Amino acid sequence: MAPETVLSIDAMGGDRGPAPLIGALDRVARKRSGLRFLLHGRAEELEPLLRRRSALVGRYELRDCPGLVRMDDPPTRSLRDRRDTSMWQCLEAVSRGEAAVAVSAGNTGTLLAMAVLILRRAPGVARPAIAVHWPAARPEGYTIALDVGANLSAEPAHLAQYALMGAEYARISFGVDAPRVGLLNIGTEETKGPDRLRETAALISDAATRTGRFAYHGFVEGTDLSGNRVDVVVTDGFTGNIALKTGEGTAGFVRQTLTSAFRHSWLTRFASMFAVTTLMRLRQRIDPRRVNGGVFLGLRGTVVKSHGGADAVGFVSAIELAAQMAETEFTQRVAKQLGKLDIRRATGPGGPQNDDVGA
Amino acid sequence: MAPETVLSIDAMGGDRGPAPLIGALDRVARKRSGLRFLLHGRAEELEPLLRRRSALVGRYELRDCPGLVRMDDPPTRSLRDRRDTSMWQCLEAVSRGEAAVAVSAGNTGTLLAMAVLILRRAPGVARPAIAVHWPAARPEGYTIALDVGANLSAEPAHLAQYALMGAEYARISFGVDAPRVGLLNIGTEETKGPDRLRETAALISDAATRTGRFAYHGFVEGTDLSGNRVDVVVTDGFTGNIALKTGEGTAGFVRQTLTSAFRHSWLTRFASMFAVTTLMRLRQRIDPRRVNGGVFLGLRGTVVKSHGGADAVGFVSAIELAAQMAETEFTQRVAKQLGKLDIRRATGPGGPQNDDVGA
Repeated sequence: MAPETVLSIDAMGGDRGPAPLIGALDRVARKRSGLRFLLHGRAEELEPLLRRRSALVGRYELRDCPGLVRMDDPPTRSLRDRRDTSMWQCLEAVSRGEAAVAVSAGNTGTLLAMAVLILRRAPGVARPAIAVHWPAARPEGYTIALDVGANLSAEPAHLAQYALMGAEYARISFGVDAPRVGLLNIGTEETKGPDRLRETAALISDAATRTGRFAYHGFVEGTDLSGNRVDVVVTDGFTGNIALKTGEGTAGFVRQTLTSAFRHSWLTRFASMFAVTTLMRLRQRIDPRRVNGGVFLGLRGTVVKSHGGADAVGFVSAIELAAQMAETEFTQRVAKQLGKLDIRRATGPGGPQNDDVGA
Repeated sequence: MAPETVLSIDAMGGDRGPAPLIGALDRVARKRSGLRFLLHGRAEELEPLLRRRSALVGRYELRDCPGLVRMDDPPTRSLRDRRDTSMWQCLEAVSRGEAAVAVSAGNTGTLLAMAVLILRRAPGVARPAIAVHWPAARPEGYTIALDVGANLSAEPAHLAQYALMGAEYARISFGVDAPRVGLLNIGTEETKGPDRLRETAALISDAATRTGRFAYHGFVEGTDLSGNRVDVVVTDGFTGNIALKTGEGTAGFVRQTLTSAFRHSWLTRFASMFAVTTLMRLRQRIDPRRVNGGVFLGLRGTVVKSHGGADAVGFVSAIELAAQMAETEFTQRVAKQLGKLDIRRATGPGGPQNDDVGA
C-alpha cells in the first residue's frame, strides 16, 4: 500500500471564504484515496462546512487558528506577530515535516515572505523562485514561467538553478521526460541581448548536460510564453513580473474589448448570445494570473499559491498539483539534481529579497 | 499660407509591395493640402502605381533607388554598402534637411541602425528610444510605451529623457496638455522595485517640474500598459521589448483560441458568422505590434516605422502621424525641453547599442 500523502492547507485565504476550498478538498479526496489534509483556520467557520462532506470523514485534522492574514495588512507589520494565523501554521506544519506541500490562497507577498522565513531555502538552492502556468497554444495548454517575482534580480547561476527547478516542475505538470527550457531575451539569435544572458545560457546548457534532466533550447522571446517552442521560460523576477502583469493587462483589455465589440450592433448582440460560454472560457484561459496562482520553488517544502479568487474548480487543480508534487517528492528530487551543478558558489549571498508579485 | 511640409518616404519597405503605401499617400494628400512627399524606391515599380493617383499629381518627387533592404539581409552586412537603398536615401533626405520626418516599413533593426548612423542623436539627447502606441482601454485607444528596444539598458538620466520625449509624443498623439507619465515597475508602491528605479523616479519628477510639460504619476505595472492610469509608460529597452512581445504573444494566442472556440459547436459556428467583423476588429486592436510600428525619438529628425504588413489604412495613420510630427516641429520642440533638464551629464557615453526589436 502506498504511504499516505499529507498536504498542509491554509483554509482561510480565499477571497470567497473557505467554502469553495472545502468543496475542492472533498472532490479531490474522492479521487485520491491516499491523501490526507492538515487544515488550518477558524474551527467555528470550518466545522459546519466540513460536516457536510462525507468524503472528508477521517481524512483531515483541523487545527484551530484564530488569526487571519488580511489582504490589506500593512507589509511592515511583523510576520512574527502573525504566528497565530492559518497561513503561518500551514507553513509551519511543512517545516515540522508533518506535510510535504503547503497550499494557500492568501496574499502572495505575505505568503512568500513567511514561507522564506519559516521554510528557508532548500539545500543547494541560492534563491527561491515563483513559477506560474502561462496559458499557451500547445497541447499541454501552458508553458511554465519563472521567476515571476520572488527576487528582483538574478545572477546567471541563479537563473541556471531556476532552469533546473522549472524543468523538474514541467516533468510533473506536463509529464514530459526532457522538458525544453528557454531563456527569455529580446531576440532568439545568440548575439542578442545583454552579456549576462550569454553567460547564463552557457550555465544552463551546462546544467542540462550535467543533469540530463532537460534540453536547453536557447533564447526565447516574449511571444514564446504563449507559444509552443519550449516547456519552460526562465527569467529574472523583475522581467518575469512585468511580463506576467502585461499578460494580465492584455487579457483584461481583451475582456473589455470583446464585451463592447459584441454590443456594437443588434447583429453582434445576437451573436453574443450564442457565443457567451465561448467568451467566458476564453477570458479564463488567457490570463496568466487567473489560471494558477503560482508555485514557490526552492524552499524546504513546496508552497502552492492558489489564486485568491479561485472557485472550487480552481482549488481542485491547485490541490491536485500539490498532491502530485508531494507524491513525487519534488523537493528532494530538485535538491538531488541541483547537487550535480557546479554553481554552488552562487548560494552564498542573495537570499530572497522579498520583492513579491503582490496578490 | 502655411509653409509646405515635406515627408521622406521609403516606398519599398512594405511586405505587400508598394501599392498599399501609394494608395495611402493618395488618401492623405486629398486630406492635407500642404503636404509633399519625397519618394524613394524603384522608379519602374512605382511609376505605374503613381500614374493612377490623381491627388498625387505635383505633390511628390520620385527618386530612383535600385537597392533594397531585405528582411533576410544578414545583420553583419555593412550598412554603408547599402547606400543605394530606398531606406538609406529616405533617411539621408532628412539628414540633408529636405524633409523633417522619414517613414519606412522596412526591417526595424536595420532601420534603427541606419537612422542612428545617418541622422545621429539630436542635441541634448543621450539615447534614442523607440515608442509605440499600446492598445489600451482609454478614450484615446492607446498608451505610449517607450523604449521598446532601441537600447538594452538605460540609466536613470536616460529614462528621464525618455519620459520627456514620450510626453511630447503624447501631446501630439492624444492632444493632451499635461500627459501623465508612469515608470514601469513590479508594483505601484514607492518602496517597490530596484533602487535605480527610485533614483529614476526622482529625476523624472524633477523633469516634470522643470519643464512643466507633463505630470509624473509614479510607478505603474504591466497591467497599466493597456489601462487608463497614464498616457505614457517609460521603461528600458530590454524590459519594454519583453513586454511588447509578451503582448503580441497574448494577442496571437487570443486569436487562435477565439478561432478554435468558435469552431466548438454548430451553435458557436453559427454565432461566429455574425461576429466575424467584431473578431477581426479585436485581433487588430489588441496587438501592440500590429497597430503601429513605432516611432524613433531622439534623433535629428523623426523616423516613423510603419508596420511591414500594413494595409493602406495602416499606412494612412503612419503618414498622418509623420505629417503631424513634422508640422509641429517635434524634434526642435523636444530639444528645447531637454535643454531644461539638469541631466546633460548623461549625454556623454552610451550611444545607441543597436539592440533592436527586430522587424
